[in-house]
Amino acid sequence: MLTPNELVVRCLGQRTVDSPLKLSTMRDDGIGDFVPDDARMLFRPDFSPRDPIRADLSFEKAGPRQQLFFDPGHTTAAIVTCGGLCPGLNNVIRSVFFQLHHNYGVRNVVGIRYGYRGLNPVHGVPPVRLTPEFVESIHKLGGTVLGSSRGAEEPRGMVDFLERERINILFCVGGDGTQRGSHAIAEEVNRRGLTIAIVGIPKTIDNDLSYVWRSFGYYSALDKAREILDGAHAEAKGVPNGIALVKLMGRHAGFIAAGATLASQEVNFTLIPEIPFELEGEYGFLPCLKRRILNRGHAVIVVAEGAGQDLVGQGEAGTDASGNVKLQDIGPFLRDKILGYFARERISAGMKYFDPSYVIRSVPANTDDALLCDRLARNAVHAAMAGKTDVLMGLWYNTFIHVPISLAIREKKRLSPESEVWMSVLASTGQPVQFCR
Amino acid sequence: MLTPNELVVRCLGQRTVDSPLKLSTMRDDGIGDFVPDDARMLFRPDFSPRDPIRADLSFEKAGPRQQLFFDPGHTTAAIVTCGGLCPGLNNVIRSVFFQLHHNYGVRNVVGIRYGYRGLNPVHGVPPVRLTPEFVESIHKLGGTVLGSSRGAEEPRGMVDFLERERINILFCVGGDGTQRGSHAIAEEVNRRGLTIAIVGIPKTIDNDLSYVWRSFGYYSALDKAREILDGAHAEAKGVPNGIALVKLMGRHAGFIAAGATLASQEVNFTLIPEIPFELEGEYGFLPCLKRRILNRGHAVIVVAEGAGQDLVGQGEAGTDASGNVKLQDIGPFLRDKILGYFARERISAGMKYFDPSYVIRSVPANTDDALLCDRLARNAVHAAMAGKTDVLMGLWYNTFIHVPISLAIREKKRLSPESEVWMSVLASTGQPVQFCR
Amino acid sequence: MLTPNELVVRCLGQRTVDSPLKLSTMRDDGIGDFVPDDARMLFRPDFSPRDPIRADLSFEKAGPRQQLFFDPGHTTAAIVTCGGLCPGLNNVIRSVFFQLHHNYGVRNVVGIRYGYRGLNPVHGVPPVRLTPEFVESIHKLGGTVLGSSRGAEEPRGMVDFLERERINILFCVGGDGTQRGSHAIAEEVNRRGLTIAIVGIPKTIDNDLSYVWRSFGYYSALDKAREILDGAHAEAKGVPNGIALVKLMGRHAGFIAAGATLASQEVNFTLIPEIPFELEGEYGFLPCLKRRILNRGHAVIVVAEGAGQDLVGQGEAGTDASGNVKLQDIGPFLRDKILGYFARERISAGMKYFDPSYVIRSVPANTDDALLCDRLARNAVHAAMAGKTDVLMGLWYNTFIHVPISLAIREKKRLSPESEVWMSVLASTGQPVQFCR
Amino acid sequence: MLTPNELVVRCLGQRTVDSPLKLSTMRDDGIGDFVPDDARMLFRPDFSPRDPIRADLSFEKAGPRQQLFFDPGHTTAAIVTCGGLCPGLNNVIRSVFFQLHHNYGVRNVVGIRYGYRGLNPVHGVPPVRLTPEFVESIHKLGGTVLGSSRGAEEPRGMVDFLERERINILFCVGGDGTQRGSHAIAEEVNRRGLTIAIVGIPKTIDNDLSYVWRSFGYYSALDKAREILDGAHAEAKGVPNGIALVKLMGRHAGFIAAGATLASQEVNFTLIPEIPFELEGEYGFLPCLKRRILNRGHAVIVVAEGAGQDLVGQGEAGTDASGNVKLQDIGPFLRDKILGYFARERISAGMKYFDPSYVIRSVPANTDDALLCDRLARNAVHAAMAGKTDVLMGLWYNTFIHVPISLAIREKKRLSPESEVWMSVLASTGQPVQFCR
Repeated sequence: MLTPNELVVRCLGQRTVDSPLKLSTMRDDGIGDFVPDDARMLFRPDFSPRDPIRADLSFEKAGPRQQLFFDPGHTTAAIVTCGGLCPGLNNVIRSVFFQLHHNYGVRNVVGIRYGYRGLNPVHGVPPVRLTPEFVESIHKLGGTVLGSSRGAEEPRGMVDFLERERINILFCVGGDGTQRGSHAIAEEVNRRGLTIAIVGIPKTIDNDLSYVWRSFGYYSALDKAREILDGAHAEAKGVPNGIALVKLMGRHAGFIAAGATLASQEVNFTLIPEIPFELEGEYGFLPCLKRRILNRGHAVIVVAEGAGQDLVGQGEAGTDASGNVKLQDIGPFLRDKILGYFARERISAGMKYFDPSYVIRSVPANTDDALLCDRLARNAVHAAMAGKTDVLMGLWYNTFIHVPISLAIREKKRLSPESEVWMSVLASTGQPVQFCR
Repeated sequence: MLTPNELVVRCLGQRTVDSPLKLSTMRDDGIGDFVPDDARMLFRPDFSPRDPIRADLSFEKAGPRQQLFFDPGHTTAAIVTCGGLCPGLNNVIRSVFFQLHHNYGVRNVVGIRYGYRGLNPVHGVPPVRLTPEFVESIHKLGGTVLGSSRGAEEPRGMVDFLERERINILFCVGGDGTQRGSHAIAEEVNRRGLTIAIVGIPKTIDNDLSYVWRSFGYYSALDKAREILDGAHAEAKGVPNGIALVKLMGRHAGFIAAGATLASQEVNFTLIPEIPFELEGEYGFLPCLKRRILNRGHAVIVVAEGAGQDLVGQGEAGTDASGNVKLQDIGPFLRDKILGYFARERISAGMKYFDPSYVIRSVPANTDDALLCDRLARNAVHAAMAGKTDVLMGLWYNTFIHVPISLAIREKKRLSPESEVWMSVLASTGQPVQFCR
Repeated sequence: MLTPNELVVRCLGQRTVDSPLKLSTMRDDGIGDFVPDDARMLFRPDFSPRDPIRADLSFEKAGPRQQLFFDPGHTTAAIVTCGGLCPGLNNVIRSVFFQLHHNYGVRNVVGIRYGYRGLNPVHGVPPVRLTPEFVESIHKLGGTVLGSSRGAEEPRGMVDFLERERINILFCVGGDGTQRGSHAIAEEVNRRGLTIAIVGIPKTIDNDLSYVWRSFGYYSALDKAREILDGAHAEAKGVPNGIALVKLMGRHAGFIAAGATLASQEVNFTLIPEIPFELEGEYGFLPCLKRRILNRGHAVIVVAEGAGQDLVGQGEAGTDASGNVKLQDIGPFLRDKILGYFARERISAGMKYFDPSYVIRSVPANTDDALLCDRLARNAVHAAMAGKTDVLMGLWYNTFIHVPISLAIREKKRLSPESEVWMSVLASTGQPVQFCR
Repeated sequence: MLTPNELVVRCLGQRTVDSPLKLSTMRDDGIGDFVPDDARMLFRPDFSPRDPIRADLSFEKAGPRQQLFFDPGHTTAAIVTCGGLCPGLNNVIRSVFFQLHHNYGVRNVVGIRYGYRGLNPVHGVPPVRLTPEFVESIHKLGGTVLGSSRGAEEPRGMVDFLERERINILFCVGGDGTQRGSHAIAEEVNRRGLTIAIVGIPKTIDNDLSYVWRSFGYYSALDKAREILDGAHAEAKGVPNGIALVKLMGRHAGFIAAGATLASQEVNFTLIPEIPFELEGEYGFLPCLKRRILNRGHAVIVVAEGAGQDLVGQGEAGTDASGNVKLQDIGPFLRDKILGYFARERISAGMKYFDPSYVIRSVPANTDDALLCDRLARNAVHAAMAGKTDVLMGLWYNTFIHVPISLAIREKKRLSPESEVWMSVLASTGQPVQFCR
């Protein structure tokens, strides 16, 4: 359970610099307002007699502060993008830069190349200086103009680099792993008594970061996935007993699978990591699919890449040369199970298997994500300039909040089988609850 | 100021029918839960020392109820779409139908043709019976398969029709005017002591309905508007001193203008109804535009159709044959003012005027709106089956709520000049606050 | 070499019915003209001193004939779609139907279900009667509303079916294999002395049918492939030494690979079936890729599915349980070869493999294909009503022609390494000619 | 009538430089071939007994020449884009640059700013030096990165500029007016005895240049127009007696109106400049529209901007301050005529008027145009390097040709009412021939 203490955000020190933003502290004067540090957002804004309001559990609201920790004229900021591609990375880079440059007047902003590797000089990829010309049109492109990489670097080396380059603010754009890294950097910074703000910007196309209601890239992914599901539907209907099986992203959470199902409305079965299922037996998936095929002549199945891992693991995969259990890919596994089952049942079926992951994650941000990235980036800059550190930008009931990174990385967000989204998936697919254990 | 009383939602009577939905009342049993009637959503979930939590002000949460008022086997539902086109109308029709048909087991669902006209037999447009085949692919089309119309019909006639056709539930999809109509129907139903549920589904591409954080169609509109602003940017940059002026929808509120500005990031001036501005004078828009053109060689301007009405009204428009003040269109008005000003200043400028309204509102729903429409429709059906009436489906901090229609129509939602969105518009356009009075 | 005789198109008999089309035979009267049977299109319209004009080699032009063989009032037509999905199938079905129905006044038009299976009653899939309502919006959907299937049926059984159902005209939409089938049907019809017109409509997303300059679906495929290549480019640039490998369709011909390369302009290597290449050695592909990676840090590779089959065949694939040589998929084969090579060369590389085939072929027709399908379908109906049979609709220097099916299926179209297209691919990719043997 | 003489293309002089392109002169050696100067394309490749082959009328084929006039190492090329925006301008700039830079090895390539204005130093807009970095991603953007302008400059001044800047080749991208300008430049160059090649690249979104079967931008325009017509269809069907009137580009030719009609398949009336029509009277457009509305309840009308100019001219427009006849816009004119007629006939109708021109022409090139622009640009470079001058790149039966500019500008291309395209429009719309005079 959450405690009030865990929600406290760290700040680098006292704030003594007046913000250059032309905002006010007075309501209804027609001018946007600074957000005071004691503005809070309830952890649970809904309640009922059996769940009374818990006024003690709330998040710090994000937004522009009247007093800054950093003097814009003497500040150098850096931004790094880590992990797999995600629609919107360039939008975030661009809005962070413009917010710093045009609105706060920070003149030195650099882009770290290829993720955390760019913070380790051993790799020989020096930062690039960001300019208005450099970022002007990047929001129309997929990918990240800075490059990215997976994996960690040693925190001490990275902090050495930040010190040597006199970087005051580091924006770390990335998911779970990246934020563990940014937390480690923040701790090393703290250990050394430095005043470098480490601000995490959540990036997960799977939408599985805690306290981030919706992460950028997720809706762009649904957009593209919807298109692919429409195609899958055409394939399934195009042949006798057509079965289209589409593997979508989601290693630990079914948000993309569920969201794409609802966006497309053409899916008959949605399988996600959070909800185990059986293949055979009275309530198994395969007999259920058979009934669908016999009744309707076609089926569209969406499987998240992390679904059914217990089934795959027990399978015929065996071990690799080193003796490690080889994890099989659920997509081909399920395809083969279906084909085997239908062969045994002597029903001819036309199977079409789709594995579109890179196709989905490499697109430019859609409108929705463009809006989200812009808001997210501007709020991250507000937080950094105010000296907030070891903090992740969260989104809670559509309000931007500050979340201590240590809290955010404690556990991943999961799609609850009791959530409205999952109820809608069941309603839309018509899939029986029974084949889920 | 809002009072707790105004937030109370009316119900047709006692609920005695068990819901056929396979949900539970127990948490953490892996099965989605019924929402009890006493589940509430705070009016203001954020707070601070100077704005303490007001526990007395909260909305009723939407969602499936365990006990229904209507027996699905003996229920006839109708749906009507009113007013101008809006992306997502067909999605709402389809999900309302499927939720009633597949999940609640309601077998009689009819579509009213051409808005409220279809509720007045004098117009000779009888309802159409909805079937799975009829609605199957309609979510891929713009417009509304039922047709729509503007304008009111006499409530008594409409209720006569509902009685005669034995309709138990009427879903009214529409904006401000439509919901005034649905409220009038609900009052007439009440006056007669009938048990017909009237459930409003908010539809406003302008996103200007109170207590509806985001209405469907709005994001599809931004999508299309973004595309058009990209084109406007190309036009402005394509000629010496190019000025692209784009009129976007928004009779009373600047949400589309502001949202499209942020989505596109290519706009230099955004003019909205909520924020008056002057044309000339030291802080006027025209001198400001001149400075931009002299410095940067091009400009993109977005003007909401309802912006600057005070300027237009004072203009040379005069009166029409009947003596009514003719309202001039802000688009051509502004275009001519700009051209006149630049001519007087002896600066040649290349003006490109865009008026894309129907192009925007007639597209199919984008992914985001597809998701919203599905949620909205399913919750509207839950409300109706539970006997809620005279109620509009609201969306509050991303939670669906029940709003008494009388409250929802009391005033339109406006874009506050102090909101985060407007601060972002100022940050993104770099437009001076000064030319706004 | 082609002989004049092979270009002669068969007709079912004398044409004695006046066309109901409101056309004229006089030029410059402002009314469209019937096309006489002796209108021809040169086989080679370009020439030079060393290639003089061959006036004896020409095709019969397609178009409306003044005299018909079939009386519209007593004609039943059928349409069948065979083989894999291809964007535009529904457009063809729709325009064939409307041309027959509205313009020629043919009242009986049926759709055969699931390809040639639907012509064999044993499969129990009776034809569906086509109506304006049925086809109204189908051109907006991918796939085929009639369903399709692969594989042949016995010609005698199919002709029995056509006789029994009193079908006078059969439109066979499909590729190489399908047209072999339609030719077999036409021969069986001829053997029995029946007057059933068999008109082939070319369908090959690979664009590999002879005498068909461009087949429908091809440009829609390029559209989607371009999008995917843009994503591949983002992936390749997104990591250090990023390599994006995209397998595109093209079992025997490189038209999709080459066209997508030119449309995207982001490809560095394009490998097609027509041009063999070596992996290693001085001029091999792998050393060449290594140079690119060392110089530029990323690479995008397109490989047609039929490319490099000689390499794959020699590989470690071995035989399957029945002793048949297993053909390996060039995509994973090449991926593994690249990874192995870079491992040996001790260069770390980030490999992203894309296999988007179903994603591409299941989309709705793009604008270009919509136009082509409409023209193709209308000309096919003209041919059929005039009694042309055993004929494929060809497209030659942008002019529709009649091609005897026996000629069309004699050999597949190939992309010549000496063609303008391939020269452009070399110019655009900058790939060396040397690594091609 | 055309004479053989008019088809002769001018060359600057003898060609003595070996092409650096790695091509051959031998067929079937697997290497692309140089195109000899005596390779020709027949003016009329189709024929019939009454239209025999005219071997004397043929065009020079475009393509790479073995001998060049210009030495790449000592050549400076310039490119200028003129007139209104057109999708594909940036693609042409990019491919011209890369073909010169990478393949011919021309190191000096400049972009002229803002059309012909940039060739007149009085305007103070110096050329920009093109580099691989500058052009890298421009093909993804609408508009032209060089800027454009309308109107002419004095040829002498422009040639002074070319001489002073030592420009050897000028690529003029533009329509009718632009090519008149490029012809004037070529004549002035000739008068002075200079060896500067002037190569016209046809640009007309209206597709109305003679000897250019399809100009770039046209298909992108159809793409976008189709989308808009789908929206217009939704609007028309969305209200009782809905009429959607869409004005599309086409000042002198109906290609866009006709092409968009066929691409969309949702249009009921298409009005183009080439085919006059009457409003009232037995065969007038308005009574015909009335019949459609009474029978079907909705109608979609496409009108090209140049259609019905005789009707508009006779109207109530009057004269402007200078006494010139004011041309009224056919769009609002027709809208008002329709509204007036329906008012007189006492039929209530819901009119939606669309004027999307800038929305259409400012989009990026679609796939099809991307392919065309690349081919066009590469062939234009081949022509220029070979010393061809006063020449426009034509496209004839899908083959690139050289057309003397003087011939190309003699008359505009028109859509023949006897063409296959127009017959298809009549077949698709079902509009009666009768209301056309």
